[in-house]
Amino acid sequence: MTDGASCALPLLPSLVTLAHGGGGRLTEQLVDATFRRAFDNPALAARHDGAVIAHAGVRIATTTDGYVVRPIVFPGGDLGSLAIHGTINDLAMCGARPLMITAAVILEEGVAVDLVQRIAGSMAAAARAVGVPIVAGDTKVVERGKGDGIYVTTTGVGVCEHPLDIQPARVVPGDAVLVSGDLGRHGIAVMSAREGLAFDGAIASDSQPLWAPVAALLEAGIEVHCLRDLTRGGLAMALVEIAATARVAIELRERALAVDPAVHGACEVLGLDPLHVANEGRFAAIVHAEHADRALAVLRATREAAGAVLAGRVASGEGVTSTTAIGTTRVVEAPRGEQLPRIC
Amino acid sequence: MTDGASCALPLLPSLVTLAHGGGGRLTEQLVDATFRRAFDNPALAARHDGAVIAHAGVRIATTTDGYVVRPIVFPGGDLGSLAIHGTINDLAMCGARPLMITAAVILEEGVAVDLVQRIAGSMAAAARAVGVPIVAGDTKVVERGKGDGIYVTTTGVGVCEHPLDIQPARVVPGDAVLVSGDLGRHGIAVMSAREGLAFDGAIASDSQPLWAPVAALLEAGIEVHCLRDLTRGGLAMALVEIAATARVAIELRERALAVDPAVHGACEVLGLDPLHVANEGRFAAIVHAEHADRALAVLRATREAAGAVLAGRVASGEGVTSTTAIGTTRVVEAPRGEQLPRIC
Repeated sequence: MTDGASCALPLLPSLVTLAHGGGGRLTEQLVDATFRRAFDNPALAARHDGAVIAHAGVRIATTTDGYVVRPIVFPGGDLGSLAIHGTINDLAMCGARPLMITAAVILEEGVAVDLVQRIAGSMAAAARAVGVPIVAGDTKVVERGKGDGIYVTTTGVGVCEHPLDIQPARVVPGDAVLVSGDLGRHGIAVMSAREGLAFDGAIASDSQPLWAPVAALLEAGIEVHCLRDLTRGGLAMALVEIAATARVAIELRERALAVDPAVHGACEVLGLDPLHVANEGRFAAIVHAEHADRALAVLRATREAAGAVLAGRVASGEGVTSTTAIGTTRVVEAPRGEQLPRIC
Repeated sequence: MTDGASCALPLLPSLVTLAHGGGGRLTEQLVDATFRRAFDNPALAARHDGAVIAHAGVRIATTTDGYVVRPIVFPGGDLGSLAIHGTINDLAMCGARPLMITAAVILEEGVAVDLVQRIAGSMAAAARAVGVPIVAGDTKVVERGKGDGIYVTTTGVGVCEHPLDIQPARVVPGDAVLVSGDLGRHGIAVMSAREGLAFDGAIASDSQPLWAPVAALLEAGIEVHCLRDLTRGGLAMALVEIAATARVAIELRERALAVDPAVHGACEVLGLDPLHVANEGRFAAIVHAEHADRALAVLRATREAAGAVLAGRVASGEGVTSTTAIGTTRVVEAPRGEQLPRIC
């Protein structure tokens, strides 16, 4: 095999495995062989966090995500706040102002009504905090053993009110890569809560809505080429996908990236690369090189992206590399299968 | 208790039961006590099949539904075609031309990849048949015993391109109630497939997209006051909800309603009221009385609503009644709990 940095994937098996849900290369392989092939259309092919379609002069963005995170409540959030933040964020990554949200829930027979009320309250609070109404919903109930308490699928509809075309294909060599804050807190928080692990220092999820910092970039007139939130598969997955879609190389400076000492310690213990760990309140902004400093200042002036850093740059070539603290260069790969099932 | 036609509901229990998923009064009670209370906003309060929000002169409609039907494949369709038809139809019931669809799937570990491919293909075919792209998606995998093969949540985004405000609150005494075709085929088809029942004559689901007949009504300039597809809870649930929201009475003429003889026979055997049985390709159109004849002619000229009938009229008062074949009047109530769990 000489396909560069990546090792060969096995043939698609006949049954779906948990590893297909990890958001890594196996997820891509499954989705390519099923939905992406069947649904084939330009919006889907853009491999963005959402889709934008123009109608009567209005660019309408939409995005959808199912939330199956376990435990349902974790340090820093719960399934309800996560579902709203995730949907707001996917719209934000299209450069779209969130307009409305819909929610479809699948309840398992026997789930406690007060847990459902708690999650509903948490969704409502998260949506109100960003001023977006939850305008339509659907509730289904399945038999015991055919679900897991509560699953929520949220869909967002937003509008793009700027002239930019924000998508992976717009990324070009020379662009600057900004990362909005420290990495890995959501993944480690959920993992700790699930496995009952206690690390030095309390680690809370970074789950938060990201429309405000994105709106700040757009209002400041920054030439934004691509935005991507760093969810399943972490920063590595996000950048590997963008580099592949835009047919460019991305060079990270590892020293620029912030990782909380407690998260770093947990990653060491668990043998995880912080670049692979999921976040729910962090994003990468790839902007025109000449706007990098100003974009950084704009982001740092917001509460949500106060810890923004200039993380690297886009070059000609392919793949993602990282310059380590001691000056060597390593290849950054997408995680293969699941790092932690049901992280979101 | 003197609350008219309905009997008292038990207090909301502490655990969710399957009956809460039946689409009847218990579903309403659960949703009222959880999501509707928490999310409280005008669009949700309209109790419509979808929500419409105006932005920059464009009225954007959105609707969402989770699909958990069992068996996954049934006579006349499968979970994939059902999910697309259901979403197209909920947009159509807002008078909205479907613009795009998103799909979020929850797969159970161990589900066959070729079943996933079949459902993906079926969704794609149904969407192509109405010319609507599936523009964004999400795939999650949960452990064996935490799902049931495949659940699909579809969300539709559409646009209202007419001046009408179509919603239950617009219904007024004097209006005509049209029903687009015969009743009960989806429910009986799924029930037969699930329970291995064999009735006289093959009964296939009526699952089909309903945008074409709705578009025909709008293009003909019919003053449409409300549209409602007759899914969970059947025609009874749809009309009871509309009557309650609009604070009017609805009087049905039972003789006008068509029920296929095989469906009728199955309902007799199973002790079901065809007015309570779910449909996936039928809708009620409530229109200005003076437009009733023309609306009927317009509907009958379409393939999807060729069997449309003038089913009744709106009057002052409250509740839904039906004049039976022998001339007596009975009260039509919403089904209480589940008639058949997981019908859609």
